[in-house]
Amino acid sequence: MKFEISAELGYSVSETSALLLNIHALRTPRQKVVEESFTIDPYMKAEEIVPAQGENRFVRIEIAKTANLSISYRATVDNYFEVNDYTKQQPISVAQLDPSVFQYLHPSRYCQSDKLYRFAETKFGKIKNPFSQVIALTNWINENVLYLSGSTNSQTSAYDTVTELAGVCRDFAHLGIALCRALTIPARYFTGYAYQLQPPDFHACFEAYIGNEWVLFDPTKLVPLNGLVKIATGRDAAETAVASIYGMVQFNMMSVTCELAEKNFIPFYYDTDAMKGISYK
Amino acid sequence: MKFEISAELGYSVSETSALLLNIHALRTPRQKVVEESFTIDPYMKAEEIVPAQGENRFVRIEIAKTANLSISYRATVDNYFEVNDYTKQQPISVAQLDPSVFQYLHPSRYCQSDKLYRFAETKFGKIKNPFSQVIALTNWINENVLYLSGSTNSQTSAYDTVTELAGVCRDFAHLGIALCRALTIPARYFTGYAYQLQPPDFHACFEAYIGNEWVLFDPTKLVPLNGLVKIATGRDAAETAVASIYGMVQFNMMSVTCELAEKNFIPFYYDTDAMKGISYK
Amino acid sequence: MKFEISAELGYSVSETSALLLNIHALRTPRQKVVEESFTIDPYMKAEEIVPAQGENRFVRIEIAKTANLSISYRATVDNYFEVNDYTKQQPISVAQLDPSVFQYLHPSRYCQSDKLYRFAETKFGKIKNPFSQVIALTNWINENVLYLSGSTNSQTSAYDTVTELAGVCRDFAHLGIALCRALTIPARYFTGYAYQLQPPDFHACFEAYIGNEWVLFDPTKLVPLNGLVKIATGRDAAETAVASIYGMVQFNMMSVTCELAEKNFIPFYYDTDAMKGISYK
Amino acid sequence: MKFEISAELGYSVSETSALLLNIHALRTPRQKVVEESFTIDPYMKAEEIVPAQGENRFVRIEIAKTANLSISYRATVDNYFEVNDYTKQQPISVAQLDPSVFQYLHPSRYCQSDKLYRFAETKFGKIKNPFSQVIALTNWINENVLYLSGSTNSQTSAYDTVTELAGVCRDFAHLGIALCRALTIPARYFTGYAYQLQPPDFHACFEAYIGNEWVLFDPTKLVPLNGLVKIATGRDAAETAVASIYGMVQFNMMSVTCELAEKNFIPFYYDTDAMKGISYK
Repeated sequence: MKFEISAELGYSVSETSALLLNIHALRTPRQKVVEESFTIDPYMKAEEIVPAQGENRFVRIEIAKTANLSISYRATVDNYFEVNDYTKQQPISVAQLDPSVFQYLHPSRYCQSDKLYRFAETKFGKIKNPFSQVIALTNWINENVLYLSGSTNSQTSAYDTVTELAGVCRDFAHLGIALCRALTIPARYFTGYAYQLQPPDFHACFEAYIGNEWVLFDPTKLVPLNGLVKIATGRDAAETAVASIYGMVQFNMMSVTCELAEKNFIPFYYDTDAMKGISYK
Repeated sequence: MKFEISAELGYSVSETSALLLNIHALRTPRQKVVEESFTIDPYMKAEEIVPAQGENRFVRIEIAKTANLSISYRATVDNYFEVNDYTKQQPISVAQLDPSVFQYLHPSRYCQSDKLYRFAETKFGKIKNPFSQVIALTNWINENVLYLSGSTNSQTSAYDTVTELAGVCRDFAHLGIALCRALTIPARYFTGYAYQLQPPDFHACFEAYIGNEWVLFDPTKLVPLNGLVKIATGRDAAETAVASIYGMVQFNMMSVTCELAEKNFIPFYYDTDAMKGISYK
Repeated sequence: MKFEISAELGYSVSETSALLLNIHALRTPRQKVVEESFTIDPYMKAEEIVPAQGENRFVRIEIAKTANLSISYRATVDNYFEVNDYTKQQPISVAQLDPSVFQYLHPSRYCQSDKLYRFAETKFGKIKNPFSQVIALTNWINENVLYLSGSTNSQTSAYDTVTELAGVCRDFAHLGIALCRALTIPARYFTGYAYQLQPPDFHACFEAYIGNEWVLFDPTKLVPLNGLVKIATGRDAAETAVASIYGMVQFNMMSVTCELAEKNFIPFYYDTDAMKGISYK
Repeated sequence: MKFEISAELGYSVSETSALLLNIHALRTPRQKVVEESFTIDPYMKAEEIVPAQGENRFVRIEIAKTANLSISYRATVDNYFEVNDYTKQQPISVAQLDPSVFQYLHPSRYCQSDKLYRFAETKFGKIKNPFSQVIALTNWINENVLYLSGSTNSQTSAYDTVTELAGVCRDFAHLGIALCRALTIPARYFTGYAYQLQPPDFHACFEAYIGNEWVLFDPTKLVPLNGLVKIATGRDAAETAVASIYGMVQFNMMSVTCELAEKNFIPFYYDTDAMKGISYK
């Protein structure tokens, strides 16, 4: 599916600062960046960084003078997603697990899975099929956590959300990840552009590792699963922040769009009974 | 320096479990594993895993039957450390920082640097030389946190330790890391064997990234800095646990040794005025 | 019902310390202390203190010399409890509530009701009868929280227990209280001797204020509700500790008994359908 | 000193709600309410409640209809404060302490003194004179915690503030109280009107029990200590909230004034060397 995405960001900056941006569409076997442009006004030195693990594309901006910075990113992206049937999926034991995903079993800053073992086990431990487990916990989050703008902040973690039961997409995703890890299912944070998200913004959800695929889940259920353009994955929001600020940088404005660039979009949501999972790569 | 190290571990295990051990000496340009042996009695299938980032050497044991497991690791290791002078070290801004170390600037499960910015800035922000900053915060931890066995548990984090002011080597290291990151100095957790540690045990301390080197710091000051054999580094203890248990595995016993295998060991500790930092790799 | 209770406590003490004990059976209109004895060996000055609110009977011991202290309390207590039918109980709004119980609506150290509003409302908000609400939340705690000795410590609070789902009687009671207060039902901590508690120990449960009575609830369901001898009530365990230690006092041993002193004890437990609540005073 | 105080509050309310207000000047031996008026527009039933302990004067408003409520309180208050010299003050051991103040030694919702023992002991434990101790900890808070509007919320507690080092008067007071209790000095929360507070608002500080007096301390140092009109004291903000809302009540506006009603006001601040403490009662 082709999408046209854009992000406009405004900052007031001072010399001797640095800004790391994480807003570029990721390049993957299933997501092609057809064309893109990135501009900074006034001009400042910027460098694209792709970490070895290939989970994101940072831009590092070296602030060369005090200024009001306008940053603009536009791209046309063509991605497709695979849909797999998990009806017969068996749990994968750690003994068989691909070692490269071990890191997504550990607790992280916002996903304290080590504090949620009993909770996860009590609620979802009896379900044998791992896809069904993640569907169940995603539904539980959707039904029990209130989506409430402004109810949380950058320090809010899964341990808070599981009790306070309110949050935004970031909090929904953190809780989903923490519950997966507590069930020994590797899980990671996913940020992207989202078609039909209202109001338009960056979006966050998560991927769980099931049957050697990273399968996408969105506890907010706010957007069709096939309307996302992936920016990054990581352990949690600490690794995938849209902007990391070092020094005297003041955020002024942000505007995000994600539009279809072709016709015949058929929105895809999970049907609990269908056992079909979607995977970006 | 040559060391002979050993670890004996005992577990009661049941079929369908898995065990990840993180007790092998790491192979690095500055640490040569001269010889080593690893045995499991009774025999179970084990696989050595070296993640792409090369920060540790896991052994994954697939539990094939219910048993009392005896695990034995022995090695002779030859390592040397570099000593550099940081007298003239300038802070490295994020704009100049090697992107591969960005990940060690983020908050992690046990190192909530995002909650310690003001604390770190107030106490250590005025110091300009980054080596001096880390020496100062290491001294602060050593002088203010009581080393008290049993005072903390596996959920204790830097945010607790900075207030409760008691802990063990793991807690000292987590606090050191969190304070470094809060000061925009990349820092990572270090586990190893430690010569002269009483009582003998695995040890934890941390490395801070200063002048393109990972420089070692140990807020416990319990052992000479040149008496360590590195096992692993990682974001924090969540990534470098000696043993990660999946399934029905019961810990029974552990015995660790670290002895000199050559003569003329001259213990090396930091002298606050000398500005000389030690680096394993 | 008549009970014979006893508590033996041993401490190593040093001069210039003080010890506050909260082990005496409370005197109330429904609980008569028939006889009692309290001894300290070696003799130290002790003073009974009954706070104005009449919720407990402290003994303050002034430590006069370094010693191994043996404290012994024995009493025969005759109490009866009222059983009321709450089938037609209406919720009492704050506008009608007795002002003397306002203090039991506020969050306290171990009962952070302010963080549990949404949780309590989601789970129990639809139930209209307040007795049924507290029965429901008591059942929920009993079914979801594992009674596990040693799983918690003196800093564990309701906010931890609602997520970690393990604890001892103290933790069960704190969670019950916090959920009641989150539902605008006044609730307070109850400590006492408990007939048939295995192993013998002091016990903790809680009282909720329903229909102008303090009705007893015990989420542990470990003992018959009519087998308790009340020691104290308070906001939470911070106010009703068995022993508060000031200075160099080392706890050595404790032994508690609670035996029937008459025949024909018919154990009373709540039957969810019966709507009959028990009240000590 | 005579003060004229006022508070205007606006709420949108719905029937079946209740509102507890805690804005009346307290009547004490040292604070005389010369005249006062309290009006609610439109009229709703209101009842003044003075708890047995005499620490505050609640007004309970029973909401009788949906309305925009305007509440107005005005009073002329004549208070005086005692100034005592604590140069020779000895610590009072718990063995000698007035039992009525024991309750202010316990940890409470926002003042987790049980987590701050080591911190308090390390920083202030060597000081022998209790007045000097509280002066020292008050100065420490003032020098280390940044007064920053909007940096905290109603869940922020002393345990957060001691690490995050930012907050408002409420947070400063909670930390002062927690540190006192950790040092075995009874302490309680104080709310009042404050002359010369900019911008005008209700103020919070704390009282420590020293030498049988409740001595006032204000870690914010924002206002003269002799310019306060006491509203209430309590364990912490949980007990002394300006407004406690039960039901559908929406806060709209608040306006507070505190003016001198006589001449010759000489502002009184603590002079660390003078050892003179001020006490309202």
